[in-house]
Amino acid sequence: MVNICSMIGTSAAPDQVMAALNTIEGLSSWWTVHTSGSTAPGEVVQFRFPDGGPDMKVLESSEHRVVWESIGEPDEWLGTQLFFDVSHQDGQTILMFKHSGWAAETPFFHHCSTKWAVFMLSLREYLETGKGRPFPNDVQITVD
Amino acid sequence: MVNICSMIGTSAAPDQVMAALNTIEGLSSWWTVHTSGSTAPGEVVQFRFPDGGPDMKVLESSEHRVVWESIGEPDEWLGTQLFFDVSHQDGQTILMFKHSGWAAETPFFHHCSTKWAVFMLSLREYLETGKGRPFPNDVQITVD
Repeated sequence: MVNICSMIGTSAAPDQVMAALNTIEGLSSWWTVHTSGSTAPGEVVQFRFPDGGPDMKVLESSEHRVVWESIGEPDEWLGTQLFFDVSHQDGQTILMFKHSGWAAETPFFHHCSTKWAVFMLSLREYLETGKGRPFPNDVQITVD
Repeated sequence: MVNICSMIGTSAAPDQVMAALNTIEGLSSWWTVHTSGSTAPGEVVQFRFPDGGPDMKVLESSEHRVVWESIGEPDEWLGTQLFFDVSHQDGQTILMFKHSGWAAETPFFHHCSTKWAVFMLSLREYLETGKGRPFPNDVQITVD
């Protein structure tokens, strides 16, 4: 099993970062505008892109942590888990992110690694300026 | 051992991408402006940032591939290898990147994963527009 790791630091308070992770409004402000469902533990959040998108079951949603499991497409994500851990360190709020449990370092793994960083930067921009770059306004990493 | 993977796709030709990877001028256009040394196999390229920076021994530099080994600081990079593989697929040039051989998924591993994506996007911007965002003009991922 292999994992994608990422992190950002921000001047936003920890509870602001958590709100971007545990509310539909927050999530739709940095990942995809097409976000629906419920962020409560045991519930499912739907994230949509042009060719479908993941359904995430909320395994944990506590004061400083959100954990999801991908229960649908894409196939390579099925059963993978996503961890968001928020802490305050050295005068800033740190978000550590891990998308764990991939079977192999496939081309799609490489693609998603870059794209998760793109969305972490979108999240950071949202926290700092009030405006992120969720899909369909996300930074492109390949030729369309 | 764990690895950081990333990728970009660009309309630039494969030889343009290779020139960004196997010349000092190219490398200084997307990673750090403070780049010196020699990109020939067996030689060493120095990349500098405010607190020092890596020395990379060129293990391979062929038509579609560049491989380096980090022979100095930072400590967590010592002995790690960096692979850049260029191919043409589906009407675009694909660069697959891997920074392999890290000991563990440390906070610095998370940091570098995000930062490599930042520099891959800088490289893509350089290839597409002629102007990248090498240090000291790189996108920040934490509060300075």
